[in-house]
Amino acid sequence: MSKILELLVDAVGANVVISGDEMDRATSYWDATPTQAVALARPKTTEQVSKILAICNEHGHPVITQGGLTNCVHSAEAQKEEIILSLERMNEIESIDITGGTATVGAGVILQTLQEACLEQDMLFPLDLGARGSCTVGGNVATNAGGINVLRYGMARQLVLGLEAVMADGTVLSSMNQMLKNNSAYDLKQLFIGTEGTLGVITRINVRIFPKPTTTNAAMLALQDFDSVTKLLNRAQRDLAGNLSAFEVMWGDHYRAVTVEGANRSPMSRDYNYYIMMETEGGDTANDEAGFMSLLESCFEEEIIIDAVIPKSESERIALWDIRENFEAILEPKPIFLYDVSLPIIEMDNYINTVEQQLKDKWTDCEFYVLGHIADGNLHFFIRPNDKADKTAEQLHYDSDEIVYGELQKVNGAVSAEHGIGMEKRAWLKYSRSEEEIKLMKLLKRTLDTNNILNRGRVLGDL
Amino acid sequence: MSKILELLVDAVGANVVISGDEMDRATSYWDATPTQAVALARPKTTEQVSKILAICNEHGHPVITQGGLTNCVHSAEAQKEEIILSLERMNEIESIDITGGTATVGAGVILQTLQEACLEQDMLFPLDLGARGSCTVGGNVATNAGGINVLRYGMARQLVLGLEAVMADGTVLSSMNQMLKNNSAYDLKQLFIGTEGTLGVITRINVRIFPKPTTTNAAMLALQDFDSVTKLLNRAQRDLAGNLSAFEVMWGDHYRAVTVEGANRSPMSRDYNYYIMMETEGGDTANDEAGFMSLLESCFEEEIIIDAVIPKSESERIALWDIRENFEAILEPKPIFLYDVSLPIIEMDNYINTVEQQLKDKWTDCEFYVLGHIADGNLHFFIRPNDKADKTAEQLHYDSDEIVYGELQKVNGAVSAEHGIGMEKRAWLKYSRSEEEIKLMKLLKRTLDTNNILNRGRVLGDL
Repeated sequence: MSKILELLVDAVGANVVISGDEMDRATSYWDATPTQAVALARPKTTEQVSKILAICNEHGHPVITQGGLTNCVHSAEAQKEEIILSLERMNEIESIDITGGTATVGAGVILQTLQEACLEQDMLFPLDLGARGSCTVGGNVATNAGGINVLRYGMARQLVLGLEAVMADGTVLSSMNQMLKNNSAYDLKQLFIGTEGTLGVITRINVRIFPKPTTTNAAMLALQDFDSVTKLLNRAQRDLAGNLSAFEVMWGDHYRAVTVEGANRSPMSRDYNYYIMMETEGGDTANDEAGFMSLLESCFEEEIIIDAVIPKSESERIALWDIRENFEAILEPKPIFLYDVSLPIIEMDNYINTVEQQLKDKWTDCEFYVLGHIADGNLHFFIRPNDKADKTAEQLHYDSDEIVYGELQKVNGAVSAEHGIGMEKRAWLKYSRSEEEIKLMKLLKRTLDTNNILNRGRVLGDL
Repeated sequence: MSKILELLVDAVGANVVISGDEMDRATSYWDATPTQAVALARPKTTEQVSKILAICNEHGHPVITQGGLTNCVHSAEAQKEEIILSLERMNEIESIDITGGTATVGAGVILQTLQEACLEQDMLFPLDLGARGSCTVGGNVATNAGGINVLRYGMARQLVLGLEAVMADGTVLSSMNQMLKNNSAYDLKQLFIGTEGTLGVITRINVRIFPKPTTTNAAMLALQDFDSVTKLLNRAQRDLAGNLSAFEVMWGDHYRAVTVEGANRSPMSRDYNYYIMMETEGGDTANDEAGFMSLLESCFEEEIIIDAVIPKSESERIALWDIRENFEAILEPKPIFLYDVSLPIIEMDNYINTVEQQLKDKWTDCEFYVLGHIADGNLHFFIRPNDKADKTAEQLHYDSDEIVYGELQKVNGAVSAEHGIGMEKRAWLKYSRSEEEIKLMKLLKRTLDTNNILNRGRVLGDL
């Protein structure tokens, strides 16, 4: 047994720290091979987290913090020399305060578990994303998760009122604020939100929750040009005001690719240029539907919308959402590359056209599927080079990145909108952030984690 | 001419840096005596700000950054050994992007100027507070201003997408993000929002703007107990969903004090226990009023509300708001102390009763007037001791603070909800923040401002 393992077991017990074949788990959601690591620590208390980090810090031993392992940028995958610190056992929903609109949870609580506990009390925790069944609230906060409700409720950052974190040296920092307003000096929780575990380990969180909306109105809409898309967005934001909760755009090629035979069924013509899944959530059962329908009608009259499907039941609504959420049909054959970028809305149309042109110039048969939460400035796209020159997947990925991020830099876009940087996007970070910014980030990292033990190498690379 | 003054004039010119009697201005909005300071620098560009700070940093010379001088915690008032850095000339509204919902402004733009420029384009910059005509957007962001629309749009922090700041050593840090979603590594702007100018000088800002709402519905409501207040709040948040924009509560004593003869006119009985100014802003002219009225009707039936006044015109609506905003009638005689705290809503009723009891135990004739943005956890109150023992105002203030903050600590409240810490609340910071938190704040300050030149002494005191 290695020295560090011995020290950890001594400090927190053999039921908390295991190693070797006992660590019977996959590397990540995306990689089924057994994880490698010196040991796996599964503390039950903040005190245990503190002890584990203090020991690792003293020995300069790297630690990788794990939540639900659905990270999209290879951040959570353990390296063989690392100690895995999994928050999975710190999964208690400590309290739900309906009057104050807050919930207190352990970092290891599964997102869907919190969502359901809130719904049982007629409340809503609005953070929502595809990985809801496996990702943890701690991971959501550490990566500042986005998802499908950002337009109305903001990113994870906006939903966090307070948190408790353990710093690299084991210091427990409790900033468990519960109020919407608190200007009592520096808002330290911001150091741990979205820094991908590199500045501390989040152990407990106070989040905002909201009354569960009582009305939902949805429609799948077809439009012919991007100008109409932005017009509709502006109209929806104005007329539906605080109730607009989703405005998801699929470019025509994407829509057609996910509605092929055997995939999702298309409820309308597949020949339009843009498809939008629009939804409102409100509290006024008498009037919300009328307001929603009147917006659609006037946009029809003005020819902003050219076709629409209004679901007549909950199952029809879910089927429409499936078109947006289920893109299995385009994931094969490999290699295919998934992107997550953001850029100003006014630049989007040009950007997509330019990238598409460059991709086709490079690879004649390249497939390019675009969709996005455009109100947030966020586009996702899939690129399948269909390369004939027999390049490796890595090489193709790099070539593809170069086009996508090169053009993005010209419009002041972000190389990561919601997935974070992790290991995958480190090389491209400088396309979105200046030298001065990266220098300051490294200074913060060296100051708060002097021995560079926390998620070493992620986000910033060498310090 | 002192050495530092000479260096500054050489670097940026005598039209930018003035001193002595040329600095013809008051100390602050609250203090009409002429300001003291070594010099007043009024740069027009970020480059000039950078030069000024680089020189001051090299010489370890303290700098106080000034915006509109309406700071409530004595933060912006210059000390005689300081250089004043006023952003007043960096007051350009650079652009307003309606499609993207963003505006780019210099830090010295007056809040009301930005509000009006947005309204001209049918857009809304929702940050709003009493000092709108004098405070600057840079000051709002540096202090994370709150105000009357936080319930719906959040604090200043939530409205900032990106910013440019100059660090103590003159480094220009440009983080001018324009997107709602950007997880491209650390969100550095958080270091400068709400840190009251102690970590850098904000020079430019990208803010979020929204479509201007087309409907407004308002009512002044009377309630008899605090339980009804929280019930109404929960109902309003549920039924009015994203449209609820204000929920301002006045305790009965406050209401009566601001509606005496010669002050605001009371449109209803002055004998109720709680008065609430409630308002929604929406985009559905056909249906918003019906939704608002139906909530009020059902709350009447359930006896949550016992009296109500619905304004029949814009001037009547403004007159109702005046009752909430105009508290001139209670400001004399001095001394009277204004508080700004936050605490969990479920603790409020008990907290107010306990503080009132303690105040009256100490000073038999003590006056105590309470109001608040309670949905944000934020209460303001006025305390006039009416002390018979002839103590100094300072001593009375301290005694009053001790009661207010002592009880606050027991319910995990915040000694500053929106005003910040500045000079005034430094001694009480430890009532809201732990030793570990304050230690980390000081570490950040020492790391980012190694010579402690920026707003020295504010917020954290000795480092």
